[in-house]
Amino acid sequence: MSVAGEAGPGDAVTLGELGEAGILGDIFAALTTTERVLVGPGDDTALLATSGPVLATTDAMVRGRDWLDEWSSARDVGAKVVVQNLADLAAMGGVGTGLLVTLIAPGTLPARWARELTGGIAEVSAATGVPVIGGDLSSSDGAVAVSVTALGELPGGRAVLRSGAAPGADLAVSGSLGRSAAGLEVLRRSDADWWPPQEYAEVAAGWVAYHCRPDPDLSQGPRAADSGALAMLDVSDGLVRDAGRIATASSVRVDLDEEVLAGSAGVYEPVLGARTALDCVLSGGEEHSLLAAFPAGEAPRGWTVVGTIAETGAAGPGVWWRGERATGGGWDHFGG
Amino acid sequence: MSVAGEAGPGDAVTLGELGEAGILGDIFAALTTTERVLVGPGDDTALLATSGPVLATTDAMVRGRDWLDEWSSARDVGAKVVVQNLADLAAMGGVGTGLLVTLIAPGTLPARWARELTGGIAEVSAATGVPVIGGDLSSSDGAVAVSVTALGELPGGRAVLRSGAAPGADLAVSGSLGRSAAGLEVLRRSDADWWPPQEYAEVAAGWVAYHCRPDPDLSQGPRAADSGALAMLDVSDGLVRDAGRIATASSVRVDLDEEVLAGSAGVYEPVLGARTALDCVLSGGEEHSLLAAFPAGEAPRGWTVVGTIAETGAAGPGVWWRGERATGGGWDHFGG
Repeated sequence: MSVAGEAGPGDAVTLGELGEAGILGDIFAALTTTERVLVGPGDDTALLATSGPVLATTDAMVRGRDWLDEWSSARDVGAKVVVQNLADLAAMGGVGTGLLVTLIAPGTLPARWARELTGGIAEVSAATGVPVIGGDLSSSDGAVAVSVTALGELPGGRAVLRSGAAPGADLAVSGSLGRSAAGLEVLRRSDADWWPPQEYAEVAAGWVAYHCRPDPDLSQGPRAADSGALAMLDVSDGLVRDAGRIATASSVRVDLDEEVLAGSAGVYEPVLGARTALDCVLSGGEEHSLLAAFPAGEAPRGWTVVGTIAETGAAGPGVWWRGERATGGGWDHFGG
Repeated sequence: MSVAGEAGPGDAVTLGELGEAGILGDIFAALTTTERVLVGPGDDTALLATSGPVLATTDAMVRGRDWLDEWSSARDVGAKVVVQNLADLAAMGGVGTGLLVTLIAPGTLPARWARELTGGIAEVSAATGVPVIGGDLSSSDGAVAVSVTALGELPGGRAVLRSGAAPGADLAVSGSLGRSAAGLEVLRRSDADWWPPQEYAEVAAGWVAYHCRPDPDLSQGPRAADSGALAMLDVSDGLVRDAGRIATASSVRVDLDEEVLAGSAGVYEPVLGARTALDCVLSGGEEHSLLAAFPAGEAPRGWTVVGTIAETGAAGPGVWWRGERATGGGWDHFGG
């Protein structure tokens, strides 16, 4: 793999100077491939061997909206946009088989930034064994955006949808909640010259690292499918909002467990205060832990039961917290 | 299909007011599906039945770079970005099986524009039978971009790469050359208050229409594969540049046929002049006709032989025009 982060003689070169062919050559040189890639980058399309139905998802990041250059390196952005896409595959019970990457950027963008972006993509690609099979470069008047499409397959042959949750089931999460949001909050406050108490500096730095480059255990997706998960998604827009999606798709009510979630919030409380800590856990997005419904008592080891699934009452599908319907919170790209 | 172009009471609504869920509901309501879409939009990923290896390609359009609102309607843009992607599939000998569409736009964008974009996508989707299986919406600070990934398959089981051309073969094109570029030139000149001669007004309007919404016969891709095409791509960056790609990938020399191509240019000459007309034919991009090498004399009916494939000489692979190596021309996103 190329050492994209290291300074070199070409540091001042822009995308415009390098040209489209130069950029593509640069980018794809850094990437590995697999046997199932029958045709890789460089022809009109890629050709990928399959062993059953194909999963497909796409997710983009836009500079100034989904990341700030002050907080995230190009390498972080490349890694994060791939993880976001692979998390969607995991949330179906799937694993990745190929990635397509589109970079939209002005000709004035330093080529080094694009190389570091590729370095981040290549890191996750190598760590997960999911090759980059194609991509596109488009010039803009200033905007920088990275759009990734991930293809995948279902090792267990079964797709876990959002719609399979049934009353009596447990709702469980595969990993952390609120960690990315806590990191974002630390970054925001540091802009106002606020810093975590010294004894929490390291743990808070871990939250920031997770925000910039989330590293959820995506192998839990196929594992959950094998373990009989009834419904699943990844926590991308916050627990309440994402649990609400399972509730709506499955026509059920989700009762969140106050004690367990207050416990999760306890990790953040000494640094961020009680109110913000709980907000992180209930509404924090970009976590990419998996949230799934399992038959009662059957959540896999290591998963945390955070609620139960019940019949909808007169109020219809929704998420309940402390006896009331939980509304809002989480992230809507268009604020609606 | 929704009549997205018609004015209605919601005309002043912006994406920001509609919200992400509202936009997605709006967009996917307009679209059709097929039996092979096992899971469509609305879950973490789509799931698509396959019948062999999967083709995958991605191509984006950016406002101000790939289109101007003064010249292209949202409906044009939606149709064009899908056609561009389907042309890449056709250029392998393939047909589409699914589309993923990402819209990056500011919250201030009129929702009507997004609906018309969807209308254009839906038109091509319905006409070709290729369903939209997923997508993403991302907010920007002003930039508008549409990124599409197309998945496909090979009806004949054989992928036609760029690398299979061999000396002695004919190089042929499935449709027009230079039509999109001629349309763009008419648009450019009209900005300077120049108009085509009255007797050519209708034909020039046809070029403009083709530029804004190209309509190549993509069924020629699988047909070429069936007919033994040795190498193929679609003309997206200009004949010289794209023929050069076949030359490089196949390590051959392409000799373009001056008489045939001068004939093609003759169509544009009365309106645009001899020099520009020939430029359109040799260097005009976004045409999306297919360019393929066939064993001598075996190009399918309706294709036009525009050159021959020869051994590389000491000068190496390349494209020859009037006895000299043809260089440059065509479109590079980053000007290199």
